[in-house]
Amino acid sequence: MEFAEYIPFWDKLTAEQQQRIAGVIEFRKVTKGSHIHDSSAECLGLVMVRTGQLRAYILSEDGREITISRLFSYDVSLLSASCVMPDMQFNVMIEVEKDSEFWSIPACLFKNLMEESVAVANYAGSLLSGNMSELMWLMEQIMWKSLDKRLAAFLLEEMRLEETDTLRITHERIANHMGTAREVVTRMLRYFQSEGMVQMTRGTIAITDEKALSTLAGE
Amino acid sequence: MEFAEYIPFWDKLTAEQQQRIAGVIEFRKVTKGSHIHDSSAECLGLVMVRTGQLRAYILSEDGREITISRLFSYDVSLLSASCVMPDMQFNVMIEVEKDSEFWSIPACLFKNLMEESVAVANYAGSLLSGNMSELMWLMEQIMWKSLDKRLAAFLLEEMRLEETDTLRITHERIANHMGTAREVVTRMLRYFQSEGMVQMTRGTIAITDEKALSTLAGE
Repeated sequence: MEFAEYIPFWDKLTAEQQQRIAGVIEFRKVTKGSHIHDSSAECLGLVMVRTGQLRAYILSEDGREITISRLFSYDVSLLSASCVMPDMQFNVMIEVEKDSEFWSIPACLFKNLMEESVAVANYAGSLLSGNMSELMWLMEQIMWKSLDKRLAAFLLEEMRLEETDTLRITHERIANHMGTAREVVTRMLRYFQSEGMVQMTRGTIAITDEKALSTLAGE
Repeated sequence: MEFAEYIPFWDKLTAEQQQRIAGVIEFRKVTKGSHIHDSSAECLGLVMVRTGQLRAYILSEDGREITISRLFSYDVSLLSASCVMPDMQFNVMIEVEKDSEFWSIPACLFKNLMEESVAVANYAGSLLSGNMSELMWLMEQIMWKSLDKRLAAFLLEEMRLEETDTLRITHERIANHMGTAREVVTRMLRYFQSEGMVQMTRGTIAITDEKALSTLAGE
């Protein structure tokens, strides 16, 4: 029952509710590059990450992406269970960024628990209000922070997540994270290179002046 | 007890809970241009609109605004009760756009009800998921829809809200709604005028070709 540790509301459930979860909870290992949730898939339910890294993003009609949140070990997400929330009218895709392991509680069981347990209902509310805070922050970034600052912040975040100062990432992929075009990213990276902040080679971006990038990002 | 009709979860409360609400619910009349909630004010609680029109927006450090939602008769909002939600870390301002009347349930009582009643907790969740859908939609608009389409849609929405084809609104105010600069709005309106879609005079914008604006807005 290792999963109990990853379910924040576990101790507030009755023994009978805990048993129902134990009976249907699923454990999955997924590999980098796959999707665990997309607009065509059935509703996955509540996801609890054991290890790895997942990325939730929205997709425009013409295929552009923007990252809305990332999930790491011990994170829990309702974005994969939009069917549970009556007024959630949007589709979020969830992509596996690093090989990951996660548990999921099926949507129908989670919905029942929300209707039975005030603790579960309030927990769902706190997840949603956390997501809203992320969305508000992202909107402020997009509206009011210039692209050079956002790109600098993104490179520093990647450097920390990957624990390397030489990133293996395409300009296309960066553009997808930031909701902009590849050309815009390439242009800005060239500018960063001319300022000595990064060094580009085929397929990699090396961060050569972390301090300057931090200053630019406003850290 | 007219207010009961404006509280969607009223019938799911116990008589005792209903009495507590009746004991502390506040009714207020507010005039156009005032604010009922801002980052400095105490937490207002759950707001239920009887009549009028309110606007919820976020504000950048340098004073730029963007409208995130509008409230009309029978609308209920938790945005004025962010203190109730533990993970809601953002500040929303609520401005009165037309003379309005509303009830409010104080934050501390609403918080207690959420902890006692699964119906209230789930109702709060559905409000939040509705807000999230609005935010996602807005983000998609900002990221992926060009400003001409957004401005056309805004003018048509205003025309319907005000029930007139001659809008009394400044370019500054439109810019605040859309999160852009006044100059950008003025430039686009001049273009619309040159295409015969609007006619500008001092202080007004008359919509002269609703059909063309609708087509542009993608309606």
